[in-house]
Amino acid sequence: MDQAQARTWLTTAVEEARSGLAEGGIPIGAALYGADGTLLGRGHNRRVQDGDPSLHAETAAFRAAGRQRSYRGTTMVTTLSPCWYCSGLVRQFGISRVVIGEAVTFHGGHDWLAEHGVEIVLVDDAECAGLMRAFIAEHPALWHEDIGVN
Amino acid sequence: MDQAQARTWLTTAVEEARSGLAEGGIPIGAALYGADGTLLGRGHNRRVQDGDPSLHAETAAFRAAGRQRSYRGTTMVTTLSPCWYCSGLVRQFGISRVVIGEAVTFHGGHDWLAEHGVEIVLVDDAECAGLMRAFIAEHPALWHEDIGVN
Repeated sequence: MDQAQARTWLTTAVEEARSGLAEGGIPIGAALYGADGTLLGRGHNRRVQDGDPSLHAETAAFRAAGRQRSYRGTTMVTTLSPCWYCSGLVRQFGISRVVIGEAVTFHGGHDWLAEHGVEIVLVDDAECAGLMRAFIAEHPALWHEDIGVN
Repeated sequence: MDQAQARTWLTTAVEEARSGLAEGGIPIGAALYGADGTLLGRGHNRRVQDGDPSLHAETAAFRAAGRQRSYRGTTMVTTLSPCWYCSGLVRQFGISRVVIGEAVTFHGGHDWLAEHGVEIVLVDDAECAGLMRAFIAEHPALWHEDIGVN
């Protein structure tokens, strides 16, 4: 996948991250695109809004897409490098590609995914990094809770 | 942890698996116990019941436990070896121990978790294996969908 297509899809995830921030939540968004480019599901981190630690952005997008017989050819687009939980999701369900907004403020399991045959497209987007830098500076305890650092 | 304690906690997860089966769902159950032995949350696979592919038994139990500042000392008890998605959950949040009912019908990521310092207690329970064997024989497509095999 080329960077232009990745950037286009990333805008959906960034919209989700902004929505999460506007709701008082952690600004991480994601979207799952089908093999044919259809948007299957989108979502954002809902730890604060729903008191639900299981809804990271990627799992929220995956959930919104509903039941699928196959994830072959699908792309998970996320504003931030996926943590082990979300990387495990990608590997288990055979999601083919992950587009990542940034991996500067957090480096999750995307190298492991690449080793296991998942195509990784790192966009290195300044807005994604800016959203996280500002959030982490303001709410370090909440961010640490979200990634199990304590 | 000794096998007797593991078997006692496993009964909660088995109850969840049976509840799931009674609802027409995939018979996998889980429970998250705190460092002091308190039951923090319990749940079962809800793919069929809720049309929600994100709720594996372990993620359902994790979700039911709500927000936690730390998972240090906690134990995830599950009737079946955790898939990569659920193994990633355990690793990311620093859950200390996983009690597994059986790893015969499905072998997930528990060896990887052991390599990363998670204590694994495999009970090798006949009822857990029996529930899955019967379910897989009757609903192979549903089972494959649940673990992303296609």
